[in-house]
Amino acid sequence: MIYLVIIAAVLALGFAAFNFMTVKRMPEGTKEMAEISGAIRIGANAFIRYEYKVLYTVIAIVAVLMAVITTWHAAVALLIGSVMSGCAGFVGMKIATYANVRVTNRARETKDIGETVKVAFRGGSVMGLCVGGCALLGLFLVYVIFGIGMGQLDITTASYKNMLGLSFCPFTMTLSGYALGCSLVAMFNRVGGGIYTKAADMGADLVGKTEAHIPEDDPRNPATIADNVGDNVGDVAGLGSDLLESFVGAISSGIILAYHMFSKSLAENTGMTNEMLKTLILFPMIFVALGLIACCIGIAFLLLKKQMSKDPHKDLNGATYIAAGMTLVFGVIVSYVMFHGYEASALNRILGFKCGWISTWIAAAIGVIAGVVIGMIAEYYTSADFQPTRNLAQASLEGAALTITQGMALGMKSCMAPCVILGVGIIVSYQVSGMYGVAMAAMGMLSFVTATVSVDTYGPISDNAGGIAEMSKLDPEVRKITDTLDSVGNTTAAIGKGFAIGSGALAALALMISYLYSYNDFSTALILNLVEPMTLAGVIIGGALPFLFSGMLIEAVAKAARKMVDEVRRQFKEIPGILEGKAKPDYKTCIEISSKGAIAEMKIPSLLAIAVPVVCGFVLGPEFVGGILIGSTICSIMIAIYAGNAGGAWDNGKKYIESGEIPGAGKGSEAHDAAVVGDTVGDPLKDTVGPCLDIFIKIMSTVSLVAVAVFAEHNLADWFARIFG
Amino acid sequence: MIYLVIIAAVLALGFAAFNFMTVKRMPEGTKEMAEISGAIRIGANAFIRYEYKVLYTVIAIVAVLMAVITTWHAAVALLIGSVMSGCAGFVGMKIATYANVRVTNRARETKDIGETVKVAFRGGSVMGLCVGGCALLGLFLVYVIFGIGMGQLDITTASYKNMLGLSFCPFTMTLSGYALGCSLVAMFNRVGGGIYTKAADMGADLVGKTEAHIPEDDPRNPATIADNVGDNVGDVAGLGSDLLESFVGAISSGIILAYHMFSKSLAENTGMTNEMLKTLILFPMIFVALGLIACCIGIAFLLLKKQMSKDPHKDLNGATYIAAGMTLVFGVIVSYVMFHGYEASALNRILGFKCGWISTWIAAAIGVIAGVVIGMIAEYYTSADFQPTRNLAQASLEGAALTITQGMALGMKSCMAPCVILGVGIIVSYQVSGMYGVAMAAMGMLSFVTATVSVDTYGPISDNAGGIAEMSKLDPEVRKITDTLDSVGNTTAAIGKGFAIGSGALAALALMISYLYSYNDFSTALILNLVEPMTLAGVIIGGALPFLFSGMLIEAVAKAARKMVDEVRRQFKEIPGILEGKAKPDYKTCIEISSKGAIAEMKIPSLLAIAVPVVCGFVLGPEFVGGILIGSTICSIMIAIYAGNAGGAWDNGKKYIESGEIPGAGKGSEAHDAAVVGDTVGDPLKDTVGPCLDIFIKIMSTVSLVAVAVFAEHNLADWFARIFG
Repeated sequence: MIYLVIIAAVLALGFAAFNFMTVKRMPEGTKEMAEISGAIRIGANAFIRYEYKVLYTVIAIVAVLMAVITTWHAAVALLIGSVMSGCAGFVGMKIATYANVRVTNRARETKDIGETVKVAFRGGSVMGLCVGGCALLGLFLVYVIFGIGMGQLDITTASYKNMLGLSFCPFTMTLSGYALGCSLVAMFNRVGGGIYTKAADMGADLVGKTEAHIPEDDPRNPATIADNVGDNVGDVAGLGSDLLESFVGAISSGIILAYHMFSKSLAENTGMTNEMLKTLILFPMIFVALGLIACCIGIAFLLLKKQMSKDPHKDLNGATYIAAGMTLVFGVIVSYVMFHGYEASALNRILGFKCGWISTWIAAAIGVIAGVVIGMIAEYYTSADFQPTRNLAQASLEGAALTITQGMALGMKSCMAPCVILGVGIIVSYQVSGMYGVAMAAMGMLSFVTATVSVDTYGPISDNAGGIAEMSKLDPEVRKITDTLDSVGNTTAAIGKGFAIGSGALAALALMISYLYSYNDFSTALILNLVEPMTLAGVIIGGALPFLFSGMLIEAVAKAARKMVDEVRRQFKEIPGILEGKAKPDYKTCIEISSKGAIAEMKIPSLLAIAVPVVCGFVLGPEFVGGILIGSTICSIMIAIYAGNAGGAWDNGKKYIESGEIPGAGKGSEAHDAAVVGDTVGDPLKDTVGPCLDIFIKIMSTVSLVAVAVFAEHNLADWFARIFG
Repeated sequence: MIYLVIIAAVLALGFAAFNFMTVKRMPEGTKEMAEISGAIRIGANAFIRYEYKVLYTVIAIVAVLMAVITTWHAAVALLIGSVMSGCAGFVGMKIATYANVRVTNRARETKDIGETVKVAFRGGSVMGLCVGGCALLGLFLVYVIFGIGMGQLDITTASYKNMLGLSFCPFTMTLSGYALGCSLVAMFNRVGGGIYTKAADMGADLVGKTEAHIPEDDPRNPATIADNVGDNVGDVAGLGSDLLESFVGAISSGIILAYHMFSKSLAENTGMTNEMLKTLILFPMIFVALGLIACCIGIAFLLLKKQMSKDPHKDLNGATYIAAGMTLVFGVIVSYVMFHGYEASALNRILGFKCGWISTWIAAAIGVIAGVVIGMIAEYYTSADFQPTRNLAQASLEGAALTITQGMALGMKSCMAPCVILGVGIIVSYQVSGMYGVAMAAMGMLSFVTATVSVDTYGPISDNAGGIAEMSKLDPEVRKITDTLDSVGNTTAAIGKGFAIGSGALAALALMISYLYSYNDFSTALILNLVEPMTLAGVIIGGALPFLFSGMLIEAVAKAARKMVDEVRRQFKEIPGILEGKAKPDYKTCIEISSKGAIAEMKIPSLLAIAVPVVCGFVLGPEFVGGILIGSTICSIMIAIYAGNAGGAWDNGKKYIESGEIPGAGKGSEAHDAAVVGDTVGDPLKDTVGPCLDIFIKIMSTVSLVAVAVFAEHNLADWFARIFG
């Protein structure tokens, strides 16, 4: 059955390659369009090169450290993970920079929305398919090389001792290394890309719109290409590797939990068999493999569709719903095949599965449904079709201060509904299939990730397409088509953000539980006791961490944006004729400034996220780190939802005013100025802070999961306790 | 020794009465001043009357429910608590409305800062002394009536059965009732007052400053008296009853913990004696009684001082430091007297006191120091003397959006330092004296609360004094003196807010631990296991609660402010000559609108805080509520620190610009406009959201503490489990 995984991975990657080539073969349009798109592509490539240099240096260091302190297997798995995640991000970004101009051109040639949507979605699907395909390919490699090849799957062959004499549970350690490799890439892509995209955007807007009074995406603005590059490196590469990480995290934590359940079962003599363990390990991999195939079908369905509906949003939703629905159908089959051989009473007694063979499917289905509902909630709060954003737009009539205040209130209130969904999901999935069920809910939510990433990536591609249309001064009708695509992209982005934090939160919680299993004694119940002062202190300090991290990110964006502002001002002053459109601005310098600024500013927050759990673990021990993890996860979930929804609502509130729906307000009115302030405030929140927090909590969990194997036994706090009594 | 408590209470209340009379006998100044101050006083009284009507209706309902479901003793204690807290708030507000005009007049007559400060501080000390005195008086009554008189202190007389056949631990239940009475008053005072003060302030500013371009506190603005009333009902009465609640909560949780330790000890036969239990129960009461006496000395020292220093801030700090220092000195003595009779090894074995008789003192001292340090951190982040606020002011040069962004970043980054202090405080106090030590740290932090409340109340009195000086068109020199006092008041307010959330957090955590003790089995270790899905779901949903609550509060303020804006606009239009100063505005209607608006808007958030833990407890059981408590406490701490510091920094950043320290910016510049936007956004954050969250977490904990006695045994989740499981 394990071959299903490689079949699905190859199928997805093949489909991705096909879509890549299909898109690349399409015509680019006029010479001007090709030129602009070329500039964006060169800029994006340059940034990724800079970034990957830093990234792979860090990874090399971490890999060496891991090989020494833990096991060399884990270090190799880490490298595999980082290559997979790095490739997915790189290829996805690459196709996005090819697809953007071809979307514009298709709009120009056909003047048909449906056809244009298809090109954008085909481009986006490359990213989605790469995420699913690369994640599974890497997982298959790790499973086959280490699990089967080196016999690590057989837990009874006892633990592995490394060169320092520390012992490890081999396969879970290797798997954690794989997850960590994906995490590290995601961390740098999210943080670096997040800072880049908003620094360029804010820098372009602050001088262009506010000082020089030229519209967005105007070719006279030297920062405009950098702004478009930002969409590709932040919203495409960052998002892709982030969700790949959630995907891998959810699957890995399921497998790790299965291992620990088995060890515990051995200790307690509940009668769990090796065969049952293998089923538990295989189930999530097979489930997501079928999910990936379902996503391929959903994507193909949209691409082959003859009669596109008038609202692109419906078509895109259709692809996602087909993928999710088919995942559920396939899931029933795989659950039946894998678990129906066991008696229901045995499953209940040994594994805590209350509903027989269908238990794990129910847990996964809860995840699928929760993922869809959380996306809908995000849409409710951020789309101008609903009351909250309309009220926010209305508040703009009363000035900037009330716009901000109202947006804050909206964002804060929006935290409750998704959290209730998560909470209910956790309770029900646990009731049905125990702790393994919680991991399966996370896996379920992520099983159709390929479809959601494809839809998400469609957004920035369309955004870029609009920019290219504007910059190459095409027919306004073309711009109208790309604008329609772009506005749909805004909604899908909000849904995607809700989904990213929801699935990230579940994945992080599953990883956290794996973490706890990794250091708790198998012979006792699994406990992270909040009443232990170490844990309590950890929760409090952990809660402050995402606030510190967010504050640092906001400052990083502002700092990088200021450098951009200075450069744009300089060019306006020093290049004569630039504002009259007679001279060409120096786009390249702006791109370089963004790149350097983002790389410089991403280092400290990223290292903070990696270092804090390790340092705290070695100084204060595993209970403290457990507290840190739960505190930071909770606060990160809230800030990310708040930031995503407040930011989305400010953005769409501004667009609502621009559409002229509110009497007495419109482009250029005072209300519009107030709405622009709201949008500018929301930009770094929704596109830097929120997305970075998704990965922040996961990287803290994976780093802790890897390091706890060492610091559970060797930490200063224990050492003091042993000395002093 | 228990008589020390009543002696301290009587001493404090007598001192308060003396100061009250002394202030009231001072001359009011000109007829105009007396008139304005009269209007403020009438407005404040009217609001308190409205509010107390709602409040005592709720309290009557809660008391009846408690008498039926728990015990009548607890209901009576609840009434005592609510009367004590209500009185303290009422008297403190009353004297503030007398003191304001007398401060102005003293400035007018003497032109001496030191003399003026003394009047303001004497007024403030009445609130401070009432907080300490009333809290201890009520505690003494409860202790003597129920503890000694009805024999509830003797735990071995077994539990009490109420009319429904439910059984309770009598004294801890009674004490929890007392704490709940204080909580309920604090809740309504904080929320009602918080909405009132900012609705009036924002309403006055939005029309006055922005539309009519008249300065703050201008008598032509109809909302200006309401604005001044707001300072008294929000910053005086609200703050006073909030800190009284923390004070009572910290003491009660210490006593309740002692009880449970005793019960556990009986079960485990560790050899704890009844006498030891009584020492543990008495210790916090005696400690705070001596702390109250220390505060009286500190207050008297400042009032009797001949040579005041030039910087009022130093004098005020002096009073606090004397109070804190003497509390520590008295504390050593009381610790020695009470605990030196026990052998160090016995204390360690039975109670977990690692350092002999001085253990509890060390824990309390940690609390005292932590309280002072947390205040200093708040000052660092919000005072224009330090870099963060100066950088924020600098950012105003770049427009409103970057001002907001920078302020958000500042507030977010400021969460870490106080949380580290709290975390370290918890770990160390636990190491020294176990869980009882954590409660003692909370008690220590609050033991000099009388001094901090006195200094805090000085702020709004000075603010009002400045308003009166402006409105009665006194000599600019008078205004200059009151401005000096007011600017010191801004700093003390920021310190007070830091202290309020820090002490509130510790008190809430101590209450939460009491809550856990109340439903956990004595024969096992105390556990709130995060890996239980019920707890985990509770933590997630609990984390979203303060965000929901904050969002609702912000909207409530905006809604009430809008009503005020409409009224002010109406008056400007309908009363001819109002803007020329020829006609008198209708202040009374504005006050009524604020009052009604605040009362209407405070109901839902307040009831949410009270109802959520009870409803969740009866539906989902005590583990879920335990999760809710920890999740909401953590997130509330963060939001409150964020809101307080960001709001304070925006306010002082604006003042820094107004002072002309930044070249190219000043009153009326574009940078100033941006800073005003920041200040307006920060206002509801720092004066409504932050303060309300302090009490939000405590009321949830006390409500849960009372209700858990019932829902631990009787809840739907258990009932389902019994039926289906």
